[in-house]
Amino acid sequence: MSISEAGANAAIVAARRAADEIGIPMNVAVLDHGAALKAFARMDGALLGSIDIAVRKAKTAALFGMNTEAIGEFCRTTSPGLELTNGGLIVFAGGIPIHDQQGRTIGAVGVSGGTVEQDQHVAAVAATAAETSLKGAAQ
Amino acid sequence: MSISEAGANAAIVAARRAADEIGIPMNVAVLDHGAALKAFARMDGALLGSIDIAVRKAKTAALFGMNTEAIGEFCRTTSPGLELTNGGLIVFAGGIPIHDQQGRTIGAVGVSGGTVEQDQHVAAVAATAAETSLKGAAQ
Amino acid sequence: MSISEAGANAAIVAARRAADEIGIPMNVAVLDHGAALKAFARMDGALLGSIDIAVRKAKTAALFGMNTEAIGEFCRTTSPGLELTNGGLIVFAGGIPIHDQQGRTIGAVGVSGGTVEQDQHVAAVAATAAETSLKGAAQ
Amino acid sequence: MSISEAGANAAIVAARRAADEIGIPMNVAVLDHGAALKAFARMDGALLGSIDIAVRKAKTAALFGMNTEAIGEFCRTTSPGLELTNGGLIVFAGGIPIHDQQGRTIGAVGVSGGTVEQDQHVAAVAATAAETSLKGAAQ
Repeated sequence: MSISEAGANAAIVAARRAADEIGIPMNVAVLDHGAALKAFARMDGALLGSIDIAVRKAKTAALFGMNTEAIGEFCRTTSPGLELTNGGLIVFAGGIPIHDQQGRTIGAVGVSGGTVEQDQHVAAVAATAAETSLKGAAQ
Repeated sequence: MSISEAGANAAIVAARRAADEIGIPMNVAVLDHGAALKAFARMDGALLGSIDIAVRKAKTAALFGMNTEAIGEFCRTTSPGLELTNGGLIVFAGGIPIHDQQGRTIGAVGVSGGTVEQDQHVAAVAATAAETSLKGAAQ
Repeated sequence: MSISEAGANAAIVAARRAADEIGIPMNVAVLDHGAALKAFARMDGALLGSIDIAVRKAKTAALFGMNTEAIGEFCRTTSPGLELTNGGLIVFAGGIPIHDQQGRTIGAVGVSGGTVEQDQHVAAVAATAAETSLKGAAQ
Repeated sequence: MSISEAGANAAIVAARRAADEIGIPMNVAVLDHGAALKAFARMDGALLGSIDIAVRKAKTAALFGMNTEAIGEFCRTTSPGLELTNGGLIVFAGGIPIHDQQGRTIGAVGVSGGTVEQDQHVAAVAATAAETSLKGAAQ
């Protein structure tokens, strides 16, 4: 199963609200479980250089089913240069997988535009919103 | 000036509705006047191969300030191979520039997923919606 | 749903046998529905230049859910230059989607090494074998 | 001389069995002595992001005739940035050359999907299986 349009939209809407609350315009990318683009939004004023970062964060999280900073931990410990694979991964926080109710990765969200902590916060809100929307749809 | 998030959203919403009306799931990309991604939506069931086509249609229309099929006409008449420039252009219909009220290109929309005629129809609806939303915002 | 390892193996084994019958060593690629590599075999003596062709044929068929020669027809009629998208498509025969029992594309096979007709024949045998193996698994 | 289809299959079959024994789905790539793809298998559930890593591990081992972690040692000691050459090398364990009975490199296997130790274990089993199959064929 892969993330639906409704789930992707829930992620985008939640990310936008969370970014507005902290006053930082963000780029938000939602990819499906195969790392193909599902939805994207660049808020007014978000950094142009962050478009690619948001997409790569989501790609990294989708391809490995892990938060991007966890991939970064592998780079530092057991797997130097891992970030050079798959056309370039992002190995700091801001990419988070989205799971279905059985715990399978169905996509990922990537957020970029603020500090790493801000990006991570907004991505977490977005991933949770997508997962919550799945539960609503399943009822 | 470049297309706002509100204008990009108006294009996406209108494209989704037009695609639903003809029953064809579409990929819809909105780029700004510098051909950087502003918003994207892949409807459930839309062809994976059309993601790249939608983005390239919007890129082509943004970079030249013209509909993609007009660029195609240049390829056929005066400029063979033009489609190989800029990392690859799309030279059939479905990419349409978005203008501000002074007629300047502020972005473009690209649509792919149906026949060329269906894509062009949905892109035209989306571009018009973005331009109409600008007028509302300016009042 | 995406093609299983068992289904991919069934395609590879059948392709190998069909290629042996006509005496032409082939490259055979099986990709999942998101166009990620699932299985690959290069028979002894198969052309090196055909590795990339086999993979791209399968990619083209997976991304559009159509035989590669059908994409070629679009290139000739309505969509010139379509083959330049998605990092390069193959628009002649030898790439065939694999469907589940509900008719959904779950992957694709691409074959290269012989004439276009030979490639197409071997790919058809392989796709059928994968689909037949699915039916067996479902019983 | 380069690895045969039979040798490559022996590696794939042995890798699959070793991966099943430790319960980790793996990506397994076998490349010939010129680093061209010879055989590939992605087990059900193996990480998508590991496809590229498995292929690059095999490429690294084939191009230098050494285990990937030995290339990593060069990076750390005498040749920083070596991993950026050849389109990107992998410099941690899991890529192992396959030798003929005269000790010449005839190909390599790359495995990815588990921990570095698990990958290395499965790759070693696979390389040994390929070399053993060569001995059988030569008798």
